[in-house]
Amino acid sequence: MISNREIKTLMSLSTKKGRKESGKYLIEGFRITRSALRNKAPVLKIYITDKFKSSNDFQQIFSLIPKKVDVIVLEEKIIKSICQTLHPSGVFATCLLKNDIKKTKLIIDNCIYLDEVSDPGNLGTILRSAAWFGIKNVALSPKCVDVFNPKVVRSGMGAHFMLNILRNSDLHEFQKNNFCILGADQNGPPMYDFYNNNKKWVLVIGSEGHGISETNKKFIDHFLSIPSTGSGDSLNASIAGSILMHHLINTKN
Amino acid sequence: MISNREIKTLMSLSTKKGRKESGKYLIEGFRITRSALRNKAPVLKIYITDKFKSSNDFQQIFSLIPKKVDVIVLEEKIIKSICQTLHPSGVFATCLLKNDIKKTKLIIDNCIYLDEVSDPGNLGTILRSAAWFGIKNVALSPKCVDVFNPKVVRSGMGAHFMLNILRNSDLHEFQKNNFCILGADQNGPPMYDFYNNNKKWVLVIGSEGHGISETNKKFIDHFLSIPSTGSGDSLNASIAGSILMHHLINTKN
Repeated sequence: MISNREIKTLMSLSTKKGRKESGKYLIEGFRITRSALRNKAPVLKIYITDKFKSSNDFQQIFSLIPKKVDVIVLEEKIIKSICQTLHPSGVFATCLLKNDIKKTKLIIDNCIYLDEVSDPGNLGTILRSAAWFGIKNVALSPKCVDVFNPKVVRSGMGAHFMLNILRNSDLHEFQKNNFCILGADQNGPPMYDFYNNNKKWVLVIGSEGHGISETNKKFIDHFLSIPSTGSGDSLNASIAGSILMHHLINTKN
Repeated sequence: MISNREIKTLMSLSTKKGRKESGKYLIEGFRITRSALRNKAPVLKIYITDKFKSSNDFQQIFSLIPKKVDVIVLEEKIIKSICQTLHPSGVFATCLLKNDIKKTKLIIDNCIYLDEVSDPGNLGTILRSAAWFGIKNVALSPKCVDVFNPKVVRSGMGAHFMLNILRNSDLHEFQKNNFCILGADQNGPPMYDFYNNNKKWVLVIGSEGHGISETNKKFIDHFLSIPSTGSGDSLNASIAGSILMHHLINTKN
C-alpha cells in the first residue's frame, strides 16, 4: 500500500523543485533500474506492478536489491500517473540525490563540459556516450536542463550511476587547471587537424540552437568540427559530441 | 484568413491517416522551412504569425518563396494547436507527400536501412546524419515509425528534402543486388576489423530495444560494433548508427 501523500511526492519528482525538496529523483523502466542496482546507486524504494512481479525481468533484478530497499506493488494506473514514459515497463524506483562531486576531484582527468544544453534527450544521450567511451567526468554550465530531469535520466540509460557529475560548473576552472579546452563547433577546423601531446582535455558541447555561448567561447583553445561529406546545415548536438568523443578517445589524445 | 475546415485538416497531419488522406505533411519551425525552400521541396503553403512576418528570419526566407506558394498569417494560438513543438517559432508549412523513389533507383549506391526503428527522434536524427555524411539513400522496413511523422521531420532538420527515401523496403532486395550488407550490433566484431573492397554497402540499424530483427539478421554479411572503452550497456541507436556512418565514409570503404 501507498499513501496519497507518497503518490503526491512521487508525482512532484517530475519537477526540479519537487526533486530538490524531497532530495530524490525518479528512475523509470527496467533497464535503468537494473543499471542503478548493478552500479550500487543509492536506490531508496522500488515500485512495480503485479505483472512485473511475476516476470523474468523481476527475477533478474531481485537478487540485486539490497535488503533495506522496499519493493512496493502498485496498480498500473498509478504508475502511469507518476512516470512520464508512454509505455511504463511496470517498474520504477526512487534514488537519493547525492551531492555533486567536488570540483577539485573532477578536474584531474578528461572531461565533457555541457554549455546550456537544454534538450533533455540530447543531454541524457551525451551522458550515455560519455559512459560508453569511459569519459567519467561531466561538468554542466548553470543554464543546462537539470541532469536529474526524468527525461534526461531515461535517455542516460544508466550513465548517471557511472559518471562523476558537477553542476553549475565554470569553464574558467578548467583553464586555471591547465586543461586543453576543446570546443565542438561546426565552423571550426576539422577534428583531424588537432593533436594534443597528452595534455588533459575538456570537450565543450554547446546548445542545439546556438552552439557554445559567447561567455565560454573565449576559453576555447581549439575548435573542432566534423567534416561534412554531404549536405545539411549541421549534425544533432549529441551526435556531434559523441563522434568527437569517439575521435578523441581513439586517437589517444 | 483560414477556414475551420483547413485548420481541421492541418491538425489531422499529426496522424499517419491524416497525412495519407490529404497527401501532405507538416514542416515546423524556421530552420526546416528554410531548408525546404532552399532544397526546392514541394512546399504547398506557409503559415506564419504576425510577429514572424516582421522578423529578420522572414526576410531571410522571403525571396526563396515561389510565387505560387501562399503565405497565410495566423494567430499564435492557432499555430500552437497545430504544431507539436512546445515553442513554435512562428512559422510552419505544408509540403506535398511525394511518391517514394523507385526501388531500382535506390539500389545503385550505398544506403542506410532502418529496421523497425520506432523512436521518431532517433529516426529523424539518423536521417540528418545520413544527409550530413552524403549517404543519399535511405530505406525503411515496414514496421518503422512513419518517416513523415512531425517529430521525425523536426529531428531530421531538413534531411527529408535531401535524401532518396524508400518505405516498406525489403532487405532481400539488397542481397539480390549484390550489396555488402552490414549490421550495427553491439555484440559484433569491432568496426575496425571490416574492409570492403569497394563493394557498395547497406548499413542496417535496428530498433533501440531489440536491435536488428530476426527476419533481417539472416541477410547480414558483417556485423559491426563500436568498441567500448568505458562502461554502460549500449549506445543510443542514432549515435551508434552515426558513428558507423562516419567510419564507413571516412575509411573510404
